[in-house]
Amino acid sequence: MKVSFLLTNDDLPDLARGAAVLGTGGGGDPLVGRLLVEQALDEGHRVEVVEADELADSDLVISTAMMGAPTVVIEKLPAGDEAVHSLRRLEAHLGRTAIATIPMECGGLNSMIPLVVAARANIPVVDGDGMGRAFPELQMETFGVYGVPGSPLAVSNEHGYSAVIDTGEDNHQMESFARAVTIRMGGAAYIAEYSMSGADVKRTAIPGTLTLACDLGRTIRLAREAHRDPFDALRGHLAETIYRFGTVLMRGKIVDVERSVADGFTAGVAKIDAFDSDDTMSIHFRNENLVAYRNDEVVAIVPDLITVLDAETAQPITTDGMRYGQRVAVYGISTPEIMRTPEALAVFGPQAFGLAHPWAPLEELSA
Amino acid sequence: MKVSFLLTNDDLPDLARGAAVLGTGGGGDPLVGRLLVEQALDEGHRVEVVEADELADSDLVISTAMMGAPTVVIEKLPAGDEAVHSLRRLEAHLGRTAIATIPMECGGLNSMIPLVVAARANIPVVDGDGMGRAFPELQMETFGVYGVPGSPLAVSNEHGYSAVIDTGEDNHQMESFARAVTIRMGGAAYIAEYSMSGADVKRTAIPGTLTLACDLGRTIRLAREAHRDPFDALRGHLAETIYRFGTVLMRGKIVDVERSVADGFTAGVAKIDAFDSDDTMSIHFRNENLVAYRNDEVVAIVPDLITVLDAETAQPITTDGMRYGQRVAVYGISTPEIMRTPEALAVFGPQAFGLAHPWAPLEELSA
Repeated sequence: MKVSFLLTNDDLPDLARGAAVLGTGGGGDPLVGRLLVEQALDEGHRVEVVEADELADSDLVISTAMMGAPTVVIEKLPAGDEAVHSLRRLEAHLGRTAIATIPMECGGLNSMIPLVVAARANIPVVDGDGMGRAFPELQMETFGVYGVPGSPLAVSNEHGYSAVIDTGEDNHQMESFARAVTIRMGGAAYIAEYSMSGADVKRTAIPGTLTLACDLGRTIRLAREAHRDPFDALRGHLAETIYRFGTVLMRGKIVDVERSVADGFTAGVAKIDAFDSDDTMSIHFRNENLVAYRNDEVVAIVPDLITVLDAETAQPITTDGMRYGQRVAVYGISTPEIMRTPEALAVFGPQAFGLAHPWAPLEELSA
Repeated sequence: MKVSFLLTNDDLPDLARGAAVLGTGGGGDPLVGRLLVEQALDEGHRVEVVEADELADSDLVISTAMMGAPTVVIEKLPAGDEAVHSLRRLEAHLGRTAIATIPMECGGLNSMIPLVVAARANIPVVDGDGMGRAFPELQMETFGVYGVPGSPLAVSNEHGYSAVIDTGEDNHQMESFARAVTIRMGGAAYIAEYSMSGADVKRTAIPGTLTLACDLGRTIRLAREAHRDPFDALRGHLAETIYRFGTVLMRGKIVDVERSVADGFTAGVAKIDAFDSDDTMSIHFRNENLVAYRNDEVVAIVPDLITVLDAETAQPITTDGMRYGQRVAVYGISTPEIMRTPEALAVFGPQAFGLAHPWAPLEELSA
């Protein structure tokens, strides 16, 4: 298999920054994951990134991730082999060995966990994922949208305790059972799921999203270093990708953040007053930013990406990190076509989050 | 393996009645389980009961049971093959086939489920169990007390969805994870756990408890039919078993029942005024009856059995079934010695239920 690139310690700050952009306010701080990757690289392991097209159709690929509350991970630091343990349990259950792993989610912390698995299990990681951003639940993956069952799923914690969950083709029940075990494991655990063929990866994954996260992070950094506008630079880079379109939805000051925690989710609304007009933007979030209103008009809605960046440096700000007085640019990014089909919108469109407004493309809403 | 007896439809009413006595107010109504056994027998399956001594030391034995709220089972009737499915998943995980199954619990509904498994999987059921009565949690088994890990455990529901949980030697975490999945499965599920050798069964199980349940139920029935006192008949039968001692703690009228449901348990206190004195008995329960006070003196405490029987017919009454005005006899039964060791009391003695009073033998307390 031709290796696309070897990921190094030098790539990690850019990847973390770009993954936070794609995290759309959620997905967790990549910091802990980044430290785990650095540790593995420092021990002499390699992180080989391969393109999906390099896979043979019959290769077995297994997705790996952290599940649960990223805030818990900071208090309950992982040893680094938890997700590998889940991979091994799932392999034993299947009676087959994975040729590669793939992120389920390229936004936030979960951009990093599969790199740790790749390093420690000595297998490549596929450049792509099943969300193209961050989402809160395991059924919200293009893998599942296009017919790959997420189950069987293995979930492990830092004690090596584990469960292998089998819910047939029911990815909602898989999410439910795995969530229940994760909560009993202390709120954070590590999973292996969506075992699939190389052919399935090529058909269902959003390609190139590890590279995209690195590129977005690098684009912001290089613009800063060259004293160019990072938002223009982002727009320019996105135009060359399958995401196609990025735009500043508003620049302004955060004037209010309402936030409450329920059922393991952080939900709320942030209000932003524009710098250059009387307009107000309100962003409704549930872990991730879901919908942005300019005054009373929807200007961006899930699964299109809404990410809040520092107005000067374009540093991403999570929904947990938003504070009164912050000067921000709200940035919209259109999702790839594979995430906008009726099947995809049924699984992670506005209705899946209980929003009444129908989905419409960011390019049109923000025009 | 020499079959001790073939269980028939004619045995089931006695078994159900006796299992309800051993259920000490909890364990669930055996009715649904009894219907499942009848169905299997009517389809031509056999229920072969064997003594533990018939097992070879190297035989693999797996315990099977219902987990969750018995009240849910009545609304969500099982198809009958759920526990067999768990057995098969656990066998696949272990890479070995069970020679026999064994009840984890001889009280209430779970006296019946292993009989369904035995019939449908065409293996014998061992005459014995791991509780000698009913208890609410999976770590409360003599198997675990004497060193058999309950994990790996398989849990399945009526859709064939399942999880195989592995918590090493930590039976409390096994209980916790399995409980979480059971709740997400709708509140009732079917498990296979405590896979062990024939030698372990002989060393750790409470022997003869299926026979005991049948005998207690038959003793009550025959006494009724002969117009003899069923409580004296119970005392006479128990004296010939490893339980040794049974006694009426009080005869009286239920004058108050406080009951609340929390965390999936029914907890409360029943008050009984004696027929023949000014004494009052209060029974504290949490699914099962845990402690009985005569006025302010403890007269029986877990793991000794406290069971409430109809004052005339000796029909067992569950904690859910107790009502103001019922005329009852509160009956105490001493537990076998294997359930009274310091190791056993640490797992299912008074402290394990949050009771302040230390354990003391029923024979002394009730004297």
